[in-house]
Amino acid sequence: MKKVALTEAFASFDEHWSPRLAGELNGQAVKLAKVEGEFVWHQHEDADELFLVTSGELRIEFQHESDVVLQEGEFVIVPQGIEHRPVAENEAKILLFEPSETRNTGNVETEQTRTELKEIE
Amino acid sequence: MKKVALTEAFASFDEHWSPRLAGELNGQAVKLAKVEGEFVWHQHEDADELFLVTSGELRIEFQHESDVVLQEGEFVIVPQGIEHRPVAENEAKILLFEPSETRNTGNVETEQTRTELKEIE
Repeated sequence: MKKVALTEAFASFDEHWSPRLAGELNGQAVKLAKVEGEFVWHQHEDADELFLVTSGELRIEFQHESDVVLQEGEFVIVPQGIEHRPVAENEAKILLFEPSETRNTGNVETEQTRTELKEIE
Repeated sequence: MKKVALTEAFASFDEHWSPRLAGELNGQAVKLAKVEGEFVWHQHEDADELFLVTSGELRIEFQHESDVVLQEGEFVIVPQGIEHRPVAENEAKILLFEPSETRNTGNVETEQTRTELKEIE
């Protein structure tokens, strides 16, 4: 049984919008990502998605409701089927909790799509 | 869609070993607990359990392997069927990810057992 230290885990990679796999349980995954700039609008048809900010600020935009702005230590759950776009003016570090098979760009495929996630070592 | 600020959420209750429900997604729950002292030895037959420490220090003891000591910003996943006992020498604040129906004391029932969790408001 191996613990994961978030600070060390985030220090192990630099790439933006490319989630790393930090752990799996009950068919769900804990993913860590560094993000900066605007991501693509997308939705997940069959998966709710939790965003927890561990450093910086993340704005999540929605098509039909107000943005949610998350600071360090704040999380939100985006329900399945809700189109959203994460945006970070400056680099932010985020923890995601979602089904293991959930694709970062959901229903769209772009150059930012990641399917085989690298694992945190 | 409502964000949860961990600092405010933890400030909303004082009871130890009594997890609060902070969110649910995909049949899983985000639970927050303040803990201090020794919990009961137990295991969860059908559920892996994630412990993330957000403040303080938590030691998780196991019957057949070394303890895991978690500091702030560290997590571990305890696989289903593994007997464990969380211990905090001083008050610690922890975030749990596990299936919504998972009972805090797992296979045992004690005065610390909680089944109907209060929600974070």
